[in-house]
Parts: sequence; structure tokens; C-alpha cells
Amino acid sequence: MPRPTSIILDWGTSSLRAMLVSEDGETTDTRETSSGGIQFVKDGAFEAALMEAVGAWFSAHGPLPVLASGMITSRNGWIEVPYVDTPGGISELAAGTRKLTLGNGAVITFLPGMRNPAARPFPDVMRGEETQIVGFGLDKNRTLVLPGTHSKWARIEAGRIAGFQTYATGEVFALLTKHSFIAKAQDPVPGAEPNWSAFDRGAEFAASEGIAADAFLSAIFSARTGILDGKLKPEDILDYVSGLVIGSEFRQARATGWFKPGDAIGIVGNNILNSRYGRIAPLFDLTVEAGPENAAKRGIMLIAAAAAE
Amino acid sequence: MPRPTSIILDWGTSSLRAMLVSEDGETTDTRETSSGGIQFVKDGAFEAALMEAVGAWFSAHGPLPVLASGMITSRNGWIEVPYVDTPGGISELAAGTRKLTLGNGAVITFLPGMRNPAARPFPDVMRGEETQIVGFGLDKNRTLVLPGTHSKWARIEAGRIAGFQTYATGEVFALLTKHSFIAKAQDPVPGAEPNWSAFDRGAEFAASEGIAADAFLSAIFSARTGILDGKLKPEDILDYVSGLVIGSEFRQARATGWFKPGDAIGIVGNNILNSRYGRIAPLFDLTVEAGPENAAKRGIMLIAAAAAE
Repeated sequence: MPRPTSIILDWGTSSLRAMLVSEDGETTDTRETSSGGIQFVKDGAFEAALMEAVGAWFSAHGPLPVLASGMITSRNGWIEVPYVDTPGGISELAAGTRKLTLGNGAVITFLPGMRNPAARPFPDVMRGEETQIVGFGLDKNRTLVLPGTHSKWARIEAGRIAGFQTYATGEVFALLTKHSFIAKAQDPVPGAEPNWSAFDRGAEFAASEGIAADAFLSAIFSARTGILDGKLKPEDILDYVSGLVIGSEFRQARATGWFKPGDAIGIVGNNILNSRYGRIAPLFDLTVEAGPENAAKRGIMLIAAAAAE
Repeated sequence: MPRPTSIILDWGTSSLRAMLVSEDGETTDTRETSSGGIQFVKDGAFEAALMEAVGAWFSAHGPLPVLASGMITSRNGWIEVPYVDTPGGISELAAGTRKLTLGNGAVITFLPGMRNPAARPFPDVMRGEETQIVGFGLDKNRTLVLPGTHSKWARIEAGRIAGFQTYATGEVFALLTKHSFIAKAQDPVPGAEPNWSAFDRGAEFAASEGIAADAFLSAIFSARTGILDGKLKPEDILDYVSGLVIGSEFRQARATGWFKPGDAIGIVGNNILNSRYGRIAPLFDLTVEAGPENAAKRGIMLIAAAAAE
């Protein structure tokens, strides 16, 4: 087993995920605890929460350097690290890190999030996704999409993140299928394959050439009219709406200039959503370039290495 | 007091509203009961529910004709009246009515809803709004908007309803402000004036010339970034989101051809939402034509009169 040389933290609102990592990036152990999520840490006791999660690694391997990203660097986290503005790349992100020395002598490096001051009507922000983008690779000018509750479209230009935009697609999907009158859906069967036929119908409408799909607030009513017209069954609704809202995200990303037909884009992450995004890309005449596994870990190590220089 | 000549029912899922009406359309008495809402009527006992609500009117004035519209004519209602397809006007709607004779000898006429078979991806439907459109007036070629939970844009051509489209704007507003992470809002103070300044900021972004507002799934994230950037306060969110989603409805209605800058449109109904829609119309270079009060009652009487011929 390779010798561990650092601890990497994805420290969010609801959970703390820790990886024990070797110099060449191999993960030799992992911990995940919800009690360490920043919403559960009282009175700023973040160091104690960290020790509870990974104290055994320090005991076994000494005061390894710790690299932290995620909401732990936000106003409600351990220390608030200011956002780095786009355009920015590895050197700007490295310059934006903050360090603390822990009681055991280990140094923790907090990575900054990013802010797009050119976004309208207000600057857009992300914390954590920038490490995935860096880890995916900044070598080529291209557009990346990062599926999620608040998915991101980002543009790489000249080795830096030129800009990005958040789409609240995952959240809108959850609101519609859990709480709405028009598209409340049956709960998915855990582990079941998506209903791809229903998914494709929603996606194909979102990708269709007519103007009807430009009206998102109207398009979502089709979950209701499809039932009334006998074209959709109750068991279709969940994946029909999934295809419709993700497809609408692509349609809107095209309208706002993130891609044009014929482009190659990257889909970043190992998210379960990626297969859905990958299925929709060809409907918009896009090819998909695969990135490395564990893009976030790779990006964190690249930024931390630059910060250590 | 004028002599009552008919009873008009707006009979929906959650309530039954009844009006006692004279020949020239004056309302001489009203009843409203939630126990009569079709979801609360058991075993098809609609006649009993009607008698409980307005039996006293029959006793006082004899077996007056009854005109009913709303969800009472749907699959879950008293009798299912087939939709009348667009394009269609008063004569088509009149031909689509269905009659029943009650135990006391009164005849109840059920008015049909409308269906737009040209809508994509599935035919669009409405039940009740078509009476408001008829009552507003079919004399002039123009576009009408009917604000609501599921608002409608409708086109009048050659004295008929040429087509219509549903926008789930009110429902999306409620989902975002009640259940979302990005735009959960403080409860409104009952009876308070809207926060027009916040409303206008959302509406002006939706009406802005840049392409950013074409991405609805991204635009709604601005409720969150506005807070993070210090540009919006928690007490602004409710009306900011209201302006943003209604403004987005106009933007999408323009994109799908319901109006062009310089048009005059009608805003139908006495809904509390109308002042919000009326405030946004000029941002899209629209003038607003006022319609008659009580458009629904007027429309029901026009359709019923044609059905009686």
C-alpha cells in the first residue's frame, strides 16, 4: 500500500467526506460522517469534528497536510475564504487559499470558491465545482457541464475558467415531482433502471425544433396534459419530467451561448445524473469528451501543489 | 330588486360558488360553500350538494335554469362534458353543452371546457377560463392573458378562440417560495401591499434585452445569488421571485408568438394577480385593454343563451 501523504476533505453542509491520499493521488482510506456536516457542528468546533473523523489517520501517519474544499470555506464554515473571480485558473485559485495550523501541528489549506462577476443579474458563485473543473483539465478551450442539484455550465479559455452559470435544474425537478400538482410523481423504485422511454420523450420535446419548448413554464404543464390525453402514464411522470427539465437546461444553455451544435463538451463528475446528461447531449448535436476519474481530488491536489510552491 | 331568472355555478374542485342572476345579468344573491367542492362530494351526490347550497333559491323563485362550469364537468365531476376543440367560439361552445333535468324540474346546463389540439407536445386544456374569454369579448383579433395558478394565453381571431397555452407560473412561484432552497421566502403579511421595488427588480431582469433571462432555470438562481451578493434582502425574495416568474411568463409568451412589442392585450379576470400582470405589460412594450367586470358570468350567459336557441 502506498504511503499516505495528505488528507483531502469534501466538507459540505450535510456531511464530511475525507480521503487519505498518497503522493500520486491514490486513495488508501476514506471516512464519511454526517455528524461532521457544518450544519451539525456547534459553536465553531470544527477542529474537534475533524479530529473525530480522521484523528486515527493523524495517529497512524503523523500530522499530514489537510486540503479542504466545499461549504466549510463559506460564511457558515470554519473560515470564510473569499471567492476568486473568473477568469481564473490554478494560480489564481492557489493564491486564494487560506491556511491554519491545527493543534497537532498539521496544516490545513482551505480552497476558495469562484465567483463570476459577469453573470446577470447578480454575480454567480460556486464552492467545490471549480476543483472538479481544474481536475477535468484546463488544457483545451471547451465547455463543461457539471450535473447536480444546482448544475454548472463552465467555459475553459486559455487555460483558465473564463466564466460559469448555475442552473437550478435538479432542484426544480425535485420541486415538481415531490410537491407540484402538475407533475407529482410516484416515488422511484430504489436501484431501478430509469424509464428511458419516458425520459426520452421529455428530452426530445425539449430538444425539438419548434418554438413551443422555449416556454419552460408552459412545457412543464405537459406532464399534466400528457396524463389527461392518455399519452403518459403515472409511472412515466418521474422520468418524463427528468428528461424535460434536463433537456430544457441544454436548450437554455444553447440559447445563452454555452455551446453550438457540433461542439464537443465535457460532462464532469461521477454523478448518477451524468448518464442522463450524456444521453441528452446528442439530441443537441453535441459529442461528449470523457474526463479523468476523481476530477475533484485531482483538482484539489493541483491547486494545493501550486499553493505550496 | 330585479327578478332572478337563472342560477350560475362556478363549481370547482375545492368549492362551489353560486350566483342568483337576473335577466340582464345583475347578481341578486350569492352562496359559496367549500363542502360543495367536488372533492368533498361523496358517491356522486352532486344534486344533493347543489340543493344544500341553493335549495332556498328554488323554494323562493321556482325551478330556475342552472348554468354550471368548472371542474364539475370533468371526469371527477357530475357528468363529463367533452372538450370543444379550438378554434371555436360561442356557437361551438353552445353546441357542446349537456343538459340534465333535476328532481324539482329545473334544467341544469353544463358548459364544456376547451382543448387546443395544436399544442405541443400534447393538447392543452382549460375548464372555465373559456367563459371568461367569451365574456371579455370575441369581437376583436387580439391576445388575452388570464393570470392564475395555471395562467392562460389565448388568441382571438375572427370571433373565435383560435388557440391557447397554459403557463404553470403561479404553481412554480408557490413551489419556489414555499419549498425551495434557492428562493424560500418569508410568509407575506396578509393584506400588505406588495414590495413593488423588489417585484420590479425581478420583472426588469426578465424583460431585459440580454440573453441571460432566456435561461429560466438559471434566472431563478438569482434569488440566491442576490442574497449572497447583498443585493437582495430576505424580505425582498417573495416579490422578487413574483416579478421574475411573471416577467419570465411574458418573455416566454413573446418567444412563442403570443404577442409582439407594440401590441395591445387584454388581461382577463378580477384576480389579485392582475395588478402584477398589468405592471409588467409595459416592460414588454404592451398596452393593456380593460374588459368588462364579471367576464365569466357574462360569458356563461352568452353561451347558455346560444345553447337555448
